[in-house]
Amino acid sequence: MKKNQFKSLKQDIKSFLKKDIYGLEKKVFNNGWHASLNDLEKTRDKVKSLGYWIPQIPKKYGGMGLNLIEFGQLSAILGASPIGLYLFNCQAPDAGNMEVLIEFGTTYQKDTFLKPLLAGKIRSCFSMTEPTFAGSNPVYMGTTAVKKDNSYILNGNKWFTSSAEGASFAIVMAITNPDVENKYLRASQIIVPCNSKGFQLVRKIPVMGDKGEGYFSHSEIKYNNVKVLTKNLIGEEGSGFRIAQSRLGHGRVHHCMRWIGICERSFNMMCERAAKRELTPGKFLGEKQLIQKMIAERRAEINAAKLMVLDTANKIDKFGSKDSKIEISIIKFYCANVLKRVVDDAVQIHGGLGMSDDIILSHFYRHERAARIYDGADEVHISSVAKGILSNYGLKI
Amino acid sequence: MKKNQFKSLKQDIKSFLKKDIYGLEKKVFNNGWHASLNDLEKTRDKVKSLGYWIPQIPKKYGGMGLNLIEFGQLSAILGASPIGLYLFNCQAPDAGNMEVLIEFGTTYQKDTFLKPLLAGKIRSCFSMTEPTFAGSNPVYMGTTAVKKDNSYILNGNKWFTSSAEGASFAIVMAITNPDVENKYLRASQIIVPCNSKGFQLVRKIPVMGDKGEGYFSHSEIKYNNVKVLTKNLIGEEGSGFRIAQSRLGHGRVHHCMRWIGICERSFNMMCERAAKRELTPGKFLGEKQLIQKMIAERRAEINAAKLMVLDTANKIDKFGSKDSKIEISIIKFYCANVLKRVVDDAVQIHGGLGMSDDIILSHFYRHERAARIYDGADEVHISSVAKGILSNYGLKI
Amino acid sequence: MKKNQFKSLKQDIKSFLKKDIYGLEKKVFNNGWHASLNDLEKTRDKVKSLGYWIPQIPKKYGGMGLNLIEFGQLSAILGASPIGLYLFNCQAPDAGNMEVLIEFGTTYQKDTFLKPLLAGKIRSCFSMTEPTFAGSNPVYMGTTAVKKDNSYILNGNKWFTSSAEGASFAIVMAITNPDVENKYLRASQIIVPCNSKGFQLVRKIPVMGDKGEGYFSHSEIKYNNVKVLTKNLIGEEGSGFRIAQSRLGHGRVHHCMRWIGICERSFNMMCERAAKRELTPGKFLGEKQLIQKMIAERRAEINAAKLMVLDTANKIDKFGSKDSKIEISIIKFYCANVLKRVVDDAVQIHGGLGMSDDIILSHFYRHERAARIYDGADEVHISSVAKGILSNYGLKI
Amino acid sequence: MKKNQFKSLKQDIKSFLKKDIYGLEKKVFNNGWHASLNDLEKTRDKVKSLGYWIPQIPKKYGGMGLNLIEFGQLSAILGASPIGLYLFNCQAPDAGNMEVLIEFGTTYQKDTFLKPLLAGKIRSCFSMTEPTFAGSNPVYMGTTAVKKDNSYILNGNKWFTSSAEGASFAIVMAITNPDVENKYLRASQIIVPCNSKGFQLVRKIPVMGDKGEGYFSHSEIKYNNVKVLTKNLIGEEGSGFRIAQSRLGHGRVHHCMRWIGICERSFNMMCERAAKRELTPGKFLGEKQLIQKMIAERRAEINAAKLMVLDTANKIDKFGSKDSKIEISIIKFYCANVLKRVVDDAVQIHGGLGMSDDIILSHFYRHERAARIYDGADEVHISSVAKGILSNYGLKI
Repeated sequence: MKKNQFKSLKQDIKSFLKKDIYGLEKKVFNNGWHASLNDLEKTRDKVKSLGYWIPQIPKKYGGMGLNLIEFGQLSAILGASPIGLYLFNCQAPDAGNMEVLIEFGTTYQKDTFLKPLLAGKIRSCFSMTEPTFAGSNPVYMGTTAVKKDNSYILNGNKWFTSSAEGASFAIVMAITNPDVENKYLRASQIIVPCNSKGFQLVRKIPVMGDKGEGYFSHSEIKYNNVKVLTKNLIGEEGSGFRIAQSRLGHGRVHHCMRWIGICERSFNMMCERAAKRELTPGKFLGEKQLIQKMIAERRAEINAAKLMVLDTANKIDKFGSKDSKIEISIIKFYCANVLKRVVDDAVQIHGGLGMSDDIILSHFYRHERAARIYDGADEVHISSVAKGILSNYGLKI
Repeated sequence: MKKNQFKSLKQDIKSFLKKDIYGLEKKVFNNGWHASLNDLEKTRDKVKSLGYWIPQIPKKYGGMGLNLIEFGQLSAILGASPIGLYLFNCQAPDAGNMEVLIEFGTTYQKDTFLKPLLAGKIRSCFSMTEPTFAGSNPVYMGTTAVKKDNSYILNGNKWFTSSAEGASFAIVMAITNPDVENKYLRASQIIVPCNSKGFQLVRKIPVMGDKGEGYFSHSEIKYNNVKVLTKNLIGEEGSGFRIAQSRLGHGRVHHCMRWIGICERSFNMMCERAAKRELTPGKFLGEKQLIQKMIAERRAEINAAKLMVLDTANKIDKFGSKDSKIEISIIKFYCANVLKRVVDDAVQIHGGLGMSDDIILSHFYRHERAARIYDGADEVHISSVAKGILSNYGLKI
Repeated sequence: MKKNQFKSLKQDIKSFLKKDIYGLEKKVFNNGWHASLNDLEKTRDKVKSLGYWIPQIPKKYGGMGLNLIEFGQLSAILGASPIGLYLFNCQAPDAGNMEVLIEFGTTYQKDTFLKPLLAGKIRSCFSMTEPTFAGSNPVYMGTTAVKKDNSYILNGNKWFTSSAEGASFAIVMAITNPDVENKYLRASQIIVPCNSKGFQLVRKIPVMGDKGEGYFSHSEIKYNNVKVLTKNLIGEEGSGFRIAQSRLGHGRVHHCMRWIGICERSFNMMCERAAKRELTPGKFLGEKQLIQKMIAERRAEINAAKLMVLDTANKIDKFGSKDSKIEISIIKFYCANVLKRVVDDAVQIHGGLGMSDDIILSHFYRHERAARIYDGADEVHISSVAKGILSNYGLKI
Repeated sequence: MKKNQFKSLKQDIKSFLKKDIYGLEKKVFNNGWHASLNDLEKTRDKVKSLGYWIPQIPKKYGGMGLNLIEFGQLSAILGASPIGLYLFNCQAPDAGNMEVLIEFGTTYQKDTFLKPLLAGKIRSCFSMTEPTFAGSNPVYMGTTAVKKDNSYILNGNKWFTSSAEGASFAIVMAITNPDVENKYLRASQIIVPCNSKGFQLVRKIPVMGDKGEGYFSHSEIKYNNVKVLTKNLIGEEGSGFRIAQSRLGHGRVHHCMRWIGICERSFNMMCERAAKRELTPGKFLGEKQLIQKMIAERRAEINAAKLMVLDTANKIDKFGSKDSKIEISIIKFYCANVLKRVVDDAVQIHGGLGMSDDIILSHFYRHERAARIYDGADEVHISSVAKGILSNYGLKI
């Protein structure tokens, strides 16, 4: 997209956020997801009519065809609201699933699963993490898919399958080739319709004080002899991790940019508060150096985070995810920690109000705590960055 | 209490915690406060029958007569559970209110309010913080109590009045002497029965994802021309802050020791997890140095926190709160920050499970965030400690 | 400069650093500054012959005419060695003095002072900080310059006048207009030849274990009735701070980029060490997660620092220093703190060797401690950034 | 010692520090160690005449017989000056060597080496660390002592042998039993007179800008076929690490308390500075919250450090070093990091002056950087604490 055109797009979306999203967000939090579906649908229609629908998707699939840097910048605007990306149909986990289906899906899979997903008619989920296996070692997994005739029989227990309630299908990571020596080649991604027999949504896991509902939920799922046709296999057998890897670069840029959106909104709130909150008549919170320290240091870090993510997005666009592995890991843990500090300081500056659910900060404080955990805990990325760097010094770990 | 006797008391209470409290705690969180009142009452009866009731209260008022250091150590055990102190009737805000009534209450006030409170027949609350005035400057306050004949007419808006739902009376901080030059002498503490006309519990403030119920709630209250007799005034007119100050030392030791209880429980959980969670068969989380770092550093800090609080309690017992002002402020912000780091690391080590409400950590992570805010935000204490120290170097700020 | 041309220039200068500078650096540290002048001169001649001399200076003054971003990138290479920038004649404080003379100097001043400075025939210093006045409040100053006929008579006491030993002239900040109401308009910058009568180099201040010599020294200077002609005044009377301000943006980018050079060199050393140091046969330091953490986090921060400085340089080039004030302050304190952590970790990873003067790290650890102090201490910049931001929210402090 | 008696002893020693030590310290730093020997001797004589000589040594060996907690408290006073402990003859490494010889020395060794050491007639050193082997793995070592007839022939290369210049003997850690399976049983401690043939003090290692002299030096030593009689073996063959372990508890308490002495002195200097340094007339540094933060947080940490060290000393006195292993490791890394922050903030608050060698802070900043490295780097202790704790949860690493 041309520079000027993109600049004005960003401006439009910022206005849209303020005018159409923040109010709806409040409604959704007050009334719950299901009760808000109508309103959400209406706003989605508006987005469509404005031509902003699925901005990250190539034009030939009906999207705006933004590149990674451009879409990243939209994420950083829309991410400020927990419903922002959803309204543009570029939210996780659907966006990732779309990407996978576009790149690896068969015509059948595209027609059956991708099309309605792009149209916003259905939602999907991604079923990978398991309760009894450490997420930090994703190849260590208990769910199996055994091929029998022209079907796979899936058995296993997953949890933290986000947005499963109300989803039409899950992409499930399961071991199909347990005997292959290379453990990275044992798993496959298989599409499982959520109305399959044996697909059991055991419970929505209550998370940080919220029971969860619809898109905003994290489910435990049991796959009890779930049978799906082999044509639901994505790519080749054993390519599950390779496909997952191929999503990672984009996925992490998306997450990081969304977090930056949260950071900017929280930062804005803390500055508003510091500038307006009186300690004594005529004396304001923001005059206190301990508050100033929060503002200056967080501003520095948000700037740093944003520049690094854009630089990484640029590198991915140029050289691909594989050659940007170190940078991709760096932004994941760096941004997650900036997010932590920004939200924490924003809560602190708001005092009791920051503890309350009257304002959005408590939501960020609670749910974005997960940023340092999912998609590779900080500890995993830190170790992986160092190993990548040290291998250039001759140390292979 | 004799050393050996006290040692065995601590042991007993640790067993009690495991045997009688943790299970009940789960029930309370699942079923809610009101639905659990019966069970809570039964366990309180058991505590009474064991002779552990109101351990912090002098014997002549029916308590165990523990001194501050002894009671602090009990708090560090009972505080591990959000219902622990309640079961022994030594929970905030009631414990503080008891203390005030014992020290400053008239016979009338003792008979009417203190007695049933000590007996556990009623609960109370403390109504001080206001939404439109900064908590960091407590003398800056909008609630007034105007004397008229033998009554006070109270008007004002308070919030974060914890445990107001179900409480029988509130101790309200209100301006009675607006024209006194010394702003620390303008407010009084007045007992207001919660069924007074004009006492309006506007709402329970939703806090960190919880709507709040009963003891576990934080209310916004409006005092609309609430009329109470002047005999409900505690101490003298204008002594509100002096009385509050007199509670602070004890109150902060109580809080800090309760936090240490939370720290110990969370620390224990993180060690359990690190020792038992397999990354790959035979390889455990606790073998990772980044996990070891959390364990070693948090252990160091919990030790430090505990020793400092006990040392401060000792100083208060010996020299009084006034001469221990610096230490009291130090433990407040130091312990609150240790708490933050311990709970945060415990969540991190538990991964997705730590995010869930399946285990207690999410409760601590959410609700104990307030530790750095209430009762003097970190920023207030840091400044106050430094001023205290620098005054010994000739700088009066 | 064209992109490709500039890329190859950077490559050349990196080679030059390794081939011609690191060896000489060792000599200078072993033998001292004065004893190394000959060698330094020879290498400077080489630089000249390669066409790299004064790269930051416009072509019409004999330099390479690099813009701020380009020169910043050179600084980040040359800054890796304490003598790197000197060899290209773009070292502080001379580079700053050149800049001032080019922008504000009269023909007389350019002929007399700038020309030989550009040619590398003389060195200069900048005399501002005073021992008895806080550096964090630069307008609070004791040195005066009283106009009398066509001369100024200077009196005052300065210290930390870097590189004064061996310098030919100092630019002195002195109060010329004590009675002007606006305190920012009271001081002027005046050129004082170091052989002036009354110019007393009291002592070289021993700094972090080094007595200091020549360019590597920090002097205390007394101005005892030093008389200079009024034509030595730079710009107008009272414009001292305005001129200083005009240098700040460039000066800070230079400093930050130099620090990044130090960071990169230190980081490289720590990786080398981690990859090569055996703990037990076949087991290397870099396999330890606590070492990996240093490597990953420092890499993240150096990347962040570099991107922010280049972004700021870009902003300065586009909009000027004044409109980039917040960013300029952010990079100052952010980079200084990255520098601190990188050097500290590099020392740690080298163990005892890191403590020794056998390798360069001890030099960085000691002398670059000043980065958080000079040119605005962290505390000053933090407060100033916050004030700048909060003014956009309506709070004028 | 009786409580009151000890209290007055501490008071006396504090006065002594101010009256007799600080002035001498300045002299030593200005004139060097050798040139100050006379003055040092005179002050030592005064200490002897006051009855304070070798306070940590049992009475039957001529000391004051203080227990670990008592001596720890003296260390925290004397440690404030780099020459404090020396003047009382309780400095490292001599104090450790005395302890070893008292516990493990033969009559011959006591008569020949211990006696003059206790009398202050000679100094000694401890030769363990090697340049080519990682200090973090002390059993990995290249120096050997081969028994031949009634002698050992030592060969090896040591460095950071502190205080070797001017020492009369070294206790050398060397492999005597290379073939023993348990690697902790391969080394022995052997007394080597420094005038032995083949004892080569290769060089004094320049450390953090100081060439080193006498007691204040760190040497590289080569043992070239050094021959000593077998009666110079301390304890049994192969007991080198066991003996070293037995010193560790006491040694670490000593170090930590000495660091606390440095912390208290630095803290005092930063408060003095904050209270007295004017920013503008009538406005002081200490009024700034960013300065207050340093003061409050560092005070909290010094308190914490002191309480933990005393608590650990108490535990060692009661249960021995072995059962206090976790605590001993905790205080080592905790205190070393408190020291780092205190000294760093003290430098910051002093600005340029803090960088200079005009005041003691630069000495602390430079030389006490080693605290996080020697005697077990932070990383080693952190891992070791966690392993100790996790073993109680069933994880044996």
